[in-house]
Amino acid sequence: MSIAPETTVHPALRVAVIGAGYWGPNLARNFAMSGDWELVAVCDMDAERAAALAHKTGEPAVVTSVDRLLRDHDIDAVAIATPARTHHAIAMQAIAAGKHVLVEKPLADNSIHGREMVRAARAAGTILMADHTYCYTPAVLKIRDLLASGELGEILYIDSVRINLGLVQPDVDVFWDLAPHDLSILDFILPGGLNPVGVSAQGADPLNSGKSCVGYLSLPLHNGALAHIHVNWLSPTKIRQMVIGGSRKTLVWDDLNPQQRLSIFDRGVDLDRQEMVRGDAAGRKGAAISYRLGDTWSPALSEFEPLGLMVSEYAASIRSRTPAPTDGESALRVLSVLEAASRSLANRGRDGRLVPTTSVLEAAQ
Amino acid sequence: MSIAPETTVHPALRVAVIGAGYWGPNLARNFAMSGDWELVAVCDMDAERAAALAHKTGEPAVVTSVDRLLRDHDIDAVAIATPARTHHAIAMQAIAAGKHVLVEKPLADNSIHGREMVRAARAAGTILMADHTYCYTPAVLKIRDLLASGELGEILYIDSVRINLGLVQPDVDVFWDLAPHDLSILDFILPGGLNPVGVSAQGADPLNSGKSCVGYLSLPLHNGALAHIHVNWLSPTKIRQMVIGGSRKTLVWDDLNPQQRLSIFDRGVDLDRQEMVRGDAAGRKGAAISYRLGDTWSPALSEFEPLGLMVSEYAASIRSRTPAPTDGESALRVLSVLEAASRSLANRGRDGRLVPTTSVLEAAQ
Amino acid sequence: MSIAPETTVHPALRVAVIGAGYWGPNLARNFAMSGDWELVAVCDMDAERAAALAHKTGEPAVVTSVDRLLRDHDIDAVAIATPARTHHAIAMQAIAAGKHVLVEKPLADNSIHGREMVRAARAAGTILMADHTYCYTPAVLKIRDLLASGELGEILYIDSVRINLGLVQPDVDVFWDLAPHDLSILDFILPGGLNPVGVSAQGADPLNSGKSCVGYLSLPLHNGALAHIHVNWLSPTKIRQMVIGGSRKTLVWDDLNPQQRLSIFDRGVDLDRQEMVRGDAAGRKGAAISYRLGDTWSPALSEFEPLGLMVSEYAASIRSRTPAPTDGESALRVLSVLEAASRSLANRGRDGRLVPTTSVLEAAQ
Amino acid sequence: MSIAPETTVHPALRVAVIGAGYWGPNLARNFAMSGDWELVAVCDMDAERAAALAHKTGEPAVVTSVDRLLRDHDIDAVAIATPARTHHAIAMQAIAAGKHVLVEKPLADNSIHGREMVRAARAAGTILMADHTYCYTPAVLKIRDLLASGELGEILYIDSVRINLGLVQPDVDVFWDLAPHDLSILDFILPGGLNPVGVSAQGADPLNSGKSCVGYLSLPLHNGALAHIHVNWLSPTKIRQMVIGGSRKTLVWDDLNPQQRLSIFDRGVDLDRQEMVRGDAAGRKGAAISYRLGDTWSPALSEFEPLGLMVSEYAASIRSRTPAPTDGESALRVLSVLEAASRSLANRGRDGRLVPTTSVLEAAQ
Repeated sequence: MSIAPETTVHPALRVAVIGAGYWGPNLARNFAMSGDWELVAVCDMDAERAAALAHKTGEPAVVTSVDRLLRDHDIDAVAIATPARTHHAIAMQAIAAGKHVLVEKPLADNSIHGREMVRAARAAGTILMADHTYCYTPAVLKIRDLLASGELGEILYIDSVRINLGLVQPDVDVFWDLAPHDLSILDFILPGGLNPVGVSAQGADPLNSGKSCVGYLSLPLHNGALAHIHVNWLSPTKIRQMVIGGSRKTLVWDDLNPQQRLSIFDRGVDLDRQEMVRGDAAGRKGAAISYRLGDTWSPALSEFEPLGLMVSEYAASIRSRTPAPTDGESALRVLSVLEAASRSLANRGRDGRLVPTTSVLEAAQ
Repeated sequence: MSIAPETTVHPALRVAVIGAGYWGPNLARNFAMSGDWELVAVCDMDAERAAALAHKTGEPAVVTSVDRLLRDHDIDAVAIATPARTHHAIAMQAIAAGKHVLVEKPLADNSIHGREMVRAARAAGTILMADHTYCYTPAVLKIRDLLASGELGEILYIDSVRINLGLVQPDVDVFWDLAPHDLSILDFILPGGLNPVGVSAQGADPLNSGKSCVGYLSLPLHNGALAHIHVNWLSPTKIRQMVIGGSRKTLVWDDLNPQQRLSIFDRGVDLDRQEMVRGDAAGRKGAAISYRLGDTWSPALSEFEPLGLMVSEYAASIRSRTPAPTDGESALRVLSVLEAASRSLANRGRDGRLVPTTSVLEAAQ
Repeated sequence: MSIAPETTVHPALRVAVIGAGYWGPNLARNFAMSGDWELVAVCDMDAERAAALAHKTGEPAVVTSVDRLLRDHDIDAVAIATPARTHHAIAMQAIAAGKHVLVEKPLADNSIHGREMVRAARAAGTILMADHTYCYTPAVLKIRDLLASGELGEILYIDSVRINLGLVQPDVDVFWDLAPHDLSILDFILPGGLNPVGVSAQGADPLNSGKSCVGYLSLPLHNGALAHIHVNWLSPTKIRQMVIGGSRKTLVWDDLNPQQRLSIFDRGVDLDRQEMVRGDAAGRKGAAISYRLGDTWSPALSEFEPLGLMVSEYAASIRSRTPAPTDGESALRVLSVLEAASRSLANRGRDGRLVPTTSVLEAAQ
Repeated sequence: MSIAPETTVHPALRVAVIGAGYWGPNLARNFAMSGDWELVAVCDMDAERAAALAHKTGEPAVVTSVDRLLRDHDIDAVAIATPARTHHAIAMQAIAAGKHVLVEKPLADNSIHGREMVRAARAAGTILMADHTYCYTPAVLKIRDLLASGELGEILYIDSVRINLGLVQPDVDVFWDLAPHDLSILDFILPGGLNPVGVSAQGADPLNSGKSCVGYLSLPLHNGALAHIHVNWLSPTKIRQMVIGGSRKTLVWDDLNPQQRLSIFDRGVDLDRQEMVRGDAAGRKGAAISYRLGDTWSPALSEFEPLGLMVSEYAASIRSRTPAPTDGESALRVLSVLEAASRSLANRGRDGRLVPTTSVLEAAQ
């Protein structure tokens, strides 16, 4: 997969945006500006809202039902920005009509629905893509490149913190509100995607709001590595930071520091991995330890609008019939981890037992 | 308990320091400088090391065995700075001889030993105190005062991060190396001490060193609050930060920022805690949410040597026959949490199940 | 003068924006949104540009000359956002027609023109106001309040740094490009306005671009205080910081730290100001020195759009016939300091002599 | 000159430290620890103080007068850590006796004395070196290397800030107290040393203490570059930062950030330096401007005690009969700039005229 947009002489693909609420306008605007796309229609049950959006994006057609959209308009693809619980029905209908589908996160309201969508798209030969916007930012693309190149060595641990004084959401807890960002990023940057061997969640609802407002998510990875995510709606300070510790180098991404968003530290602990016999009763695992204290490097990042790249990738994926960088299966992995986290939280009984682990792989089958 | 040193006309108490290795010299120096104490002897099996220390601290007697120390010298108290596995035997011997005992952390190598020490001291009527040095720093004392005064309101969550490129220790994992600091601080600042309703640990040994190098510790507290500790030997950046979220205000302690170590934010989320009936099928727990975005305040901290205050508190505790701020029971609570964390780690089986919870209270019985 | 917007039942004032280039749209948008104003016309020689702006701001009339604007439209006030060299002519024409005038910074291309504008407006009884936008930001308003209340005590020094990798401007040097911000802020926050007893500028043009790209401006104030401004187009890091040292407290404004934009330090040096006779040959000025190391406090700042407040203040000023907070005389003081800085730079001869001082007061007469 | 210490088989040089007050013990300790040196004597008029120092540094001889020291002891070199006003007399006496001389900063109390010392040492063939400690820190050595290698290109500007809540000194102003650090560093790192074409100082004494507490120093360099130093005793925050802007790269040294002391930014403004004829009346100097926004790099720095390196360099300089990196002439250049700064300040008359420039070169003749 090439992430870089290419100049093409292809005719523009025809797309409709479904949902003119909070996020739809962002998608519509980027489709309207893209040379890859022609924005053919805006669809929303609220005709006035749809018309207002159409007015700002070059006056595409205004449609008030998905049925009519699919029946009356010649489109190649749709972009769905409606509430999560409606994603499944709309996407299945569009796939059945042979359309390519882009879905705002989360892919669906549960993984059963998500899996149906993935299977249906595969069967129909259409592209199913998730709008994991963060994955198209300059910083995350650079991180992905660095991990793919082996610059960091093997991944040892990942620690992600996403906290601020946030809106306590009416319907979802802090895991479902904030962790999808971290999880979709992990899935995007980890070679092979996000495949934890377990999922363990710790949550707290100290305000008695009925849902976790503070959350910790532990995701043991293969080879002994561990990913950990801290999400928090109650923090007076805002932190958006991810540390990726590798056997060769360690990367720190501080998204709130525009002057040095990424830092790659050539520092770490080296262990000659060998058995050593020691003087005590039994031979024990020992090691010759050494430390590296090398330079730090902060790569320059280009600047562009992530959604602009995303719609461009959507077009490229359709034209080449290859999965998008954030395809349906990727979104399904994210969804499965969130569901496993919820199960982990629910299983914490009154006796104080905290965290039964649920395998994502099992959950996804 | 009053933490503030007071001027007294008491005759100096007589103390011996046992152990002249890494930490003993710090204790000896502070006893020697204190008006509350007379440093009578330095005791170490290595006579040369003991003599060198005595030379720098006013030439107290040099002794090479605890037996002789207790037999030949007129002392009120000892301070034990020997390896952890020897704490129990030395302390029990000193208590049996009627001496007050200060022990370097950890109190003992396991909680069974620790409990014996606590019980023996209680039975003998001597003071048993742990050298939890952090608890005598200006920042931690201020935090304790703020929590005691109710300034922060009810505790909602505590998030502590203590990471850096650290020495991979030969005998202990990252929990036993670093978390005692966080735990002893929590025990000190929380009104009522550290009494989690559970202990859950997540660790990773990605270097295959035979012990956890990255660790996360979740400690659900009463009333739905959650304390969480992140310790890490592999981080290229150094962080020493604790956030204490309260229902009224939130405190951030950044120990590496000498210009603003403590910040108290008058910001947060307020929830009117009431049941609300909503339009969906069943009445669900809802809430009227509001946000505060008030001032931030950073108190000035006085500057003094924590160990100087600690030896002064040791004297005050002995004179008043009241428990020290960091008494044996406090140290025992810290030890019990560490043991529970180790059990939590050990119970993570091959099937990926991560974290059975062990009650500290149960462990401590 | 009250800076707080008030709710009024006044009929809306009628305004036209002249200039639809870079800044005009911001003004037009804020007039259009304000309950105090009715945006009657947009005027630009480029009819298409004017029409495009009118289209976004509620379709006011489109006019292509100031003559026609003043002749054909019933307006109370104009806002001029044309190139600086045209400010004088347009403003004089508007004032002659009895209109109130808001002018984008700088007031005029030179202080002779600026003084004419001030005098003409005064003679005509119309309000002349400068768009010193920074003065209507929450941070600067708070600083002004703090200084007015005496919270900081007497001003001892002010150090302002405004540096970043900036566009080397074709027509103005770094002083004229960046320092107007600092100077207009100083004029706004200092009780009594900006009245330095001298102006000394140091500049460097190491790229041989024909104008200073690095600049330092020293402004001795009354009572021995000193204001200093550092402006720089060549810095790889961006800093926007102002320190205001007072005899009681010191304020630090870090405009790039949204989490703590203002900090007030209750720290400083106290001097008992008295003559002391010392042992050396002659009595010398001495002092008993003491230090305060008190708390730091960071006030919460409300959030609003500065231009919204500015147009509201413009209306209030017109209605009450009182000078605006950033009136023409304020803008003239800023202009005079900039001119004095240019003279200071020009007088740096070949012999290395650097900085003849030019009094602003003298320049302004 | 090679800064790196080398292993030698030379016999140790014999040295005496004169002055056992604040700084002398640091020198004595480092001579005592060095393989290059034998600390033969400690000399102080206060015999008790000298004896106490001798006791901690291996019991060298204790001497109470320079006369006796030079008469009775077989030494190669002295290190003078007495008050500045005594440097000249002691150094001249030692040079007359054929000794090498290391002098604590400042070299002398005025440049006439300083020049005599330089000339006397040159005539006697002995090494005269100044203890500019900062020049032997890992950060400054790295900066010197980077400038020597041309990594930054031509120097465009240097901006140094050294501010904190500092002791108001009884005898010297803030320039003489703090700026010697910046000036000696500039002299050390600039290829060719510090040779400004002018010196202009702005100072403020807002506390009426009789001396400047806030100071700004402008040092125009050759080729249009400008060095600027900001020193301040009244700042509530502590900053130690130097920015060195080059035509290729820019270096930022933040001495209070141990995690990233040096940053080298591959960012800047490029100007094709050519005359361009423009459309206005006269041809004006123009330029084609472009910007680089490249990576940032932070080199790892080794850790060692600067004074240890300095005494080693002193020995190397003596053995090779080559000037030390911070030789007498270097110290004289620093002294001359400080004197020029004082003259610049003094010439600021009542009429507000600020800054007559005094050429350092002229002053040094």
